Amino acid sequence: MRGARSPRPCKRGLAVSYVAERPRVIVIGASGYAGAIAAALLWRHPGFELAAITAREDAGRPLNELYPHHRVPLVLEQLDLDRARDADAAVVAYPHGTAAPVVAALLDRGVRVVDLSADFRLRDVECYERWYVPHTHPELIERAVYGLTELHREEIATASLVACPGCFPTAAILALAPLAAAGLIGDAVIDAKTGVSGMGKQPRDANHFVAVTENVRPYGVGAHRHMPEIDQELAALGAPVPVTFVPHLLPIDEGELLSCYVTPTRPLAQAALEALYAEHYGGEPFIELVAVAPGVRDVRETNVCAINVHADERTGKLFVFAAIDNLWKGTASQAVANLNLMFGFDEAAGLR
Amino acid sequence: MRGARSPRPCKRGLAVSYVAERPRVIVIGASGYAGAIAAALLWRHPGFELAAITAREDAGRPLNELYPHHRVPLVLEQLDLDRARDADAAVVAYPHGTAAPVVAALLDRGVRVVDLSADFRLRDVECYERWYVPHTHPELIERAVYGLTELHREEIATASLVACPGCFPTAAILALAPLAAAGLIGDAVIDAKTGVSGMGKQPRDANHFVAVTENVRPYGVGAHRHMPEIDQELAALGAPVPVTFVPHLLPIDEGELLSCYVTPTRPLAQAALEALYAEHYGGEPFIELVAVAPGVRDVRETNVCAINVHADERTGKLFVFAAIDNLWKGTASQAVANLNLMFGFDEAAGLR
Amino acid sequence: MRGARSPRPCKRGLAVSYVAERPRVIVIGASGYAGAIAAALLWRHPGFELAAITAREDAGRPLNELYPHHRVPLVLEQLDLDRARDADAAVVAYPHGTAAPVVAALLDRGVRVVDLSADFRLRDVECYERWYVPHTHPELIERAVYGLTELHREEIATASLVACPGCFPTAAILALAPLAAAGLIGDAVIDAKTGVSGMGKQPRDANHFVAVTENVRPYGVGAHRHMPEIDQELAALGAPVPVTFVPHLLPIDEGELLSCYVTPTRPLAQAALEALYAEHYGGEPFIELVAVAPGVRDVRETNVCAINVHADERTGKLFVFAAIDNLWKGTASQAVANLNLMFGFDEAAGLR
Amino acid sequence: MRGARSPRPCKRGLAVSYVAERPRVIVIGASGYAGAIAAALLWRHPGFELAAITAREDAGRPLNELYPHHRVPLVLEQLDLDRARDADAAVVAYPHGTAAPVVAALLDRGVRVVDLSADFRLRDVECYERWYVPHTHPELIERAVYGLTELHREEIATASLVACPGCFPTAAILALAPLAAAGLIGDAVIDAKTGVSGMGKQPRDANHFVAVTENVRPYGVGAHRHMPEIDQELAALGAPVPVTFVPHLLPIDEGELLSCYVTPTRPLAQAALEALYAEHYGGEPFIELVAVAPGVRDVRETNVCAINVHADERTGKLFVFAAIDNLWKGTASQAVANLNLMFGFDEAAGLR
Repeated sequence: MRGARSPRPCKRGLAVSYVAERPRVIVIGASGYAGAIAAALLWRHPGFELAAITAREDAGRPLNELYPHHRVPLVLEQLDLDRARDADAAVVAYPHGTAAPVVAALLDRGVRVVDLSADFRLRDVECYERWYVPHTHPELIERAVYGLTELHREEIATASLVACPGCFPTAAILALAPLAAAGLIGDAVIDAKTGVSGMGKQPRDANHFVAVTENVRPYGVGAHRHMPEIDQELAALGAPVPVTFVPHLLPIDEGELLSCYVTPTRPLAQAALEALYAEHYGGEPFIELVAVAPGVRDVRETNVCAINVHADERTGKLFVFAAIDNLWKGTASQAVANLNLMFGFDEAAGLR
Repeated sequence: MRGARSPRPCKRGLAVSYVAERPRVIVIGASGYAGAIAAALLWRHPGFELAAITAREDAGRPLNELYPHHRVPLVLEQLDLDRARDADAAVVAYPHGTAAPVVAALLDRGVRVVDLSADFRLRDVECYERWYVPHTHPELIERAVYGLTELHREEIATASLVACPGCFPTAAILALAPLAAAGLIGDAVIDAKTGVSGMGKQPRDANHFVAVTENVRPYGVGAHRHMPEIDQELAALGAPVPVTFVPHLLPIDEGELLSCYVTPTRPLAQAALEALYAEHYGGEPFIELVAVAPGVRDVRETNVCAINVHADERTGKLFVFAAIDNLWKGTASQAVANLNLMFGFDEAAGLR
Repeated sequence: MRGARSPRPCKRGLAVSYVAERPRVIVIGASGYAGAIAAALLWRHPGFELAAITAREDAGRPLNELYPHHRVPLVLEQLDLDRARDADAAVVAYPHGTAAPVVAALLDRGVRVVDLSADFRLRDVECYERWYVPHTHPELIERAVYGLTELHREEIATASLVACPGCFPTAAILALAPLAAAGLIGDAVIDAKTGVSGMGKQPRDANHFVAVTENVRPYGVGAHRHMPEIDQELAALGAPVPVTFVPHLLPIDEGELLSCYVTPTRPLAQAALEALYAEHYGGEPFIELVAVAPGVRDVRETNVCAINVHADERTGKLFVFAAIDNLWKGTASQAVANLNLMFGFDEAAGLR
Repeated sequence: MRGARSPRPCKRGLAVSYVAERPRVIVIGASGYAGAIAAALLWRHPGFELAAITAREDAGRPLNELYPHHRVPLVLEQLDLDRARDADAAVVAYPHGTAAPVVAALLDRGVRVVDLSADFRLRDVECYERWYVPHTHPELIERAVYGLTELHREEIATASLVACPGCFPTAAILALAPLAAAGLIGDAVIDAKTGVSGMGKQPRDANHFVAVTENVRPYGVGAHRHMPEIDQELAALGAPVPVTFVPHLLPIDEGELLSCYVTPTRPLAQAALEALYAEHYGGEPFIELVAVAPGVRDVRETNVCAINVHADERTGKLFVFAAIDNLWKGTASQAVANLNLMFGFDEAAGLR
């Protein structure tokens, strides 16, 4: 019975007034957690029109059947690249390896792409192939802009292909960018804690409720694919050191907390540390510099990255704590923020 | 550092266009869970202006300190009834007994009130005093409209005092109203499951994480104060039977599921049962009749009541499952829906 | 590195002194939740020798790899029915349909069996086949004793085949047996709440952490296979009414709470109700009659069924709340209690 | 009704045979989480007699009312130091500052003490007073043995006063001792994750279910009292560096995971690292060296510390992951292990 009535009555009323004809966006792979959220954000977006949502296995099912709480009354379709031609942009939410060919086909048809996979994040194809799989479209890598909104706004605005960062790199780079840019990182340990949604929707032993509840454990020790991505971006910012990065699985659904322990290249006091971050992130709409170490609940279902800094007198280390929602700022809402930039909307449109 | 920048830039842009001067609302008791959500909804509301938020113990603290995720950059104040005079309406989120005198003072000053407490829900003052405390303002009871939006829209629109239902009665009455109105309830058992937020914000043994996690237990057996309220409303609808009602505490934060087992006065088949509910709730914006028994996650942080019905061939009973968010539809968002009606806005304004 | 040292040094010291040669038990299907617990209980049991543990898909893996917390340093084997001949007894923890042929083969070889499946619980083969699958060994049904320890001790002691009850029937029958036997049940509604382990170890959408956390929902509405089992046993006790039974899935791992709402055939006061239960369960080692409605944490990882009764003056109904651990009393520890009886040990051996 | 029957029938049968008259132990402060577990362990212990349990606020209440799942049918008493004289030993589970005077009084009366508070852990009274409160009995400090079982067995065996380590120091020191003793620690970062029980039983905003569920946040940043204790012990072992230590609160009840990131003084390969730990902990009954990074569920309700080591080729760092149950190995079961040593029992008696 659900969905018999449209829950969309207010939409026109909220439309951004200066949009005569709204850009049409399709979400490819909308049956996964992040794709579905991207679809939900675009469905309620004042500037875009959500033209279609697609899925491979779940084509034919209403999205409301998979995610009733998103209340998007559309049916998942099989991807039809010819019809995709009519779209102005696409969000591609496919696994790595599977994304690249679809991205290439979309670009061929003049569709601008925000890709959520890892396929175009790493500049070095050898590095990509060492950590992932053989790359089917290495020629597109240099066309891709790394979609960490706060760091690459201008390039994102004009890009045809935006490679959205991984969820851990999003938080890690935002946490450490001010220190990296100031040449302050001598050594960095990142201990990450993440909710189960980061592992994807496919049922597995590791995301069975019984395996997760009342538990916490490290995973991917020494082997997590987000490490080269973090290294690449921090090196580009001025910190050419391999960071230590270990994620831990927690009994929560959404949310990521990164605890970063930095050995600085020179001593830094609390006031100077705070000033550095305030200057770096002063005008940012989605960075919140907070006075107390944040919890992930503070940023749940938002595009916000909350950051707290602490210069530890006892050890001389600098601590940086960063919290995001892995499915929002870490994936889907960051994708929408990037789309906003690409189409001239306010970066925050549809994200408040 | 939080809150240094206003997160309110889009507000004017979202304003409902026909509101020249927006009605001013104050939230009294905004430090509790429900009061804080009411404040957050009104802060982002296109039609109302959130004029002030007050608290007793926490006056002087920014609301963002207590509830960073609500992102309402206001400071809690002590209630000043003289200044309250300037408000057009107030949401009172005080405990029972404490609410009535404040409500009376507000009405004296010409402020329309939506009261979240139990003080004006029961029509029979003796009944109130048997279940609660001596009533300080029984003369106001008959002025109060019972604020179950779906059942009393017209009276709510013109009321000066709306007594918002308890969270359990909201779901119970919505679940059973079609059967009650049709004279179909011979007997009814309501087994309720609720999240911990229903117990309030005050730390207690019973809401300590360690007491709740991996546990479930009945409470208030035979003695829950929401029983007379459910009975009163169902009787008014045509079902003068005392319902059996037992709530259970679950390890979730928000959400209520009511499983209702009705012995009908006459046999009813599935198709007829569905038709009855479809007819009763056909045009309702916030009732979702769903084909599969709902989970509370489906309605989390919404004003929706999801209802599923099942005519059980094996036993002849009728099952009705109703899910709401106890803090939203069960309290705060229902209050805002009622305010919308009282001030001529669309019932759904600020609630999508 | 785990398991390099044997964690079994104390075992001999704990052996029940009067056991010259300990009966050898094998657990067939020890890779599932319940089978693994049965193995762990038998491994530490003072009277039995755990001769082997078997699994189908996981054969060859140490049980410690699947369940490190059980600390049973044995390797799962493929079932070899010829070697099984050497065992004195077997616990069969296979799914329904799959269990019956294995049970038959074991009985052929003179091995006494405690079967955890549904295959030999229902006396009426037609009923079984209506709710489950075609029965491969209906001729064995009458040989089976229904293994609800408290109700069938004497027959269990001499049985060659014990059909352990389902987890819900265990709690339901224990909760209602005193009323059924006294002819007091006019009508009964059982609202059950269960942890996720009851759904088994196989990863599925429904037991994905993200689907379960912060959620609660009914399932198997009007169609749960434990209903005919409950009806059969209550009818045998003197209550030939179809009970209403609806289970709900909760975000907990182990534990079941059954809330039973009984319309009595004649009025009963609190004192009489308590007396009835005290008399019925007076000497029971694993029934705890408690003064306050129990939580499932109270009985976690025990063989205990905690029961609380309430005669509701307002409605005339009788409430019975029963809590068990679905994997222990509901399955594995009840199996061990039955094995104890079958081999002349104290019913509680290895279960305190 | 609970507790009408004694759940203790097997006790005599399990008694350690060489104990003619069992040493009498009292637990002082048995209403807290750790004290209650100590009481439960001693109640079922084959060698000791649990002579009495005391509490301040809860005196007069059955322990089963507070902790039904422990099934200890004793009533909490007010502490009577004169009667305490008859005890052979006491476990003192009082908060810091409050413990010292009681410990002193017990020692005066010839009672051997295992103290769970911080009062006698730090050798340097100035350091204690800087982190805690003024010390009422500094003269007793040198009499105290630091009760980390694995490191101080011989001194514990003959001690009159054992100061049990804090829960974090227990795991931290066990995790790092082999590296410290080998002079391998150049720098160490310890990121700790803990369940809510570590915060104690007193209801507070921070342990309210709603504040904890679906959340994770750092606390005590730069200011946690367990830091000087970790430093003291690691320095004594040969690692005179201040470690970086930050605890995080997780939505679990029991369990602690410490992720240690060590910059070694010289390179170390995986094989050498494993060999170092295997040699150091080869014969330990309660240290499990595991091949995969442990989860806290693996050690729940055990006296086990599970340790996994990883020499990270990419960064040259050494990772050590250690998991314990904060209330067991981190407090109560370690206390019982120490009592076992003090009275000549097997260290593992009553702990398997």
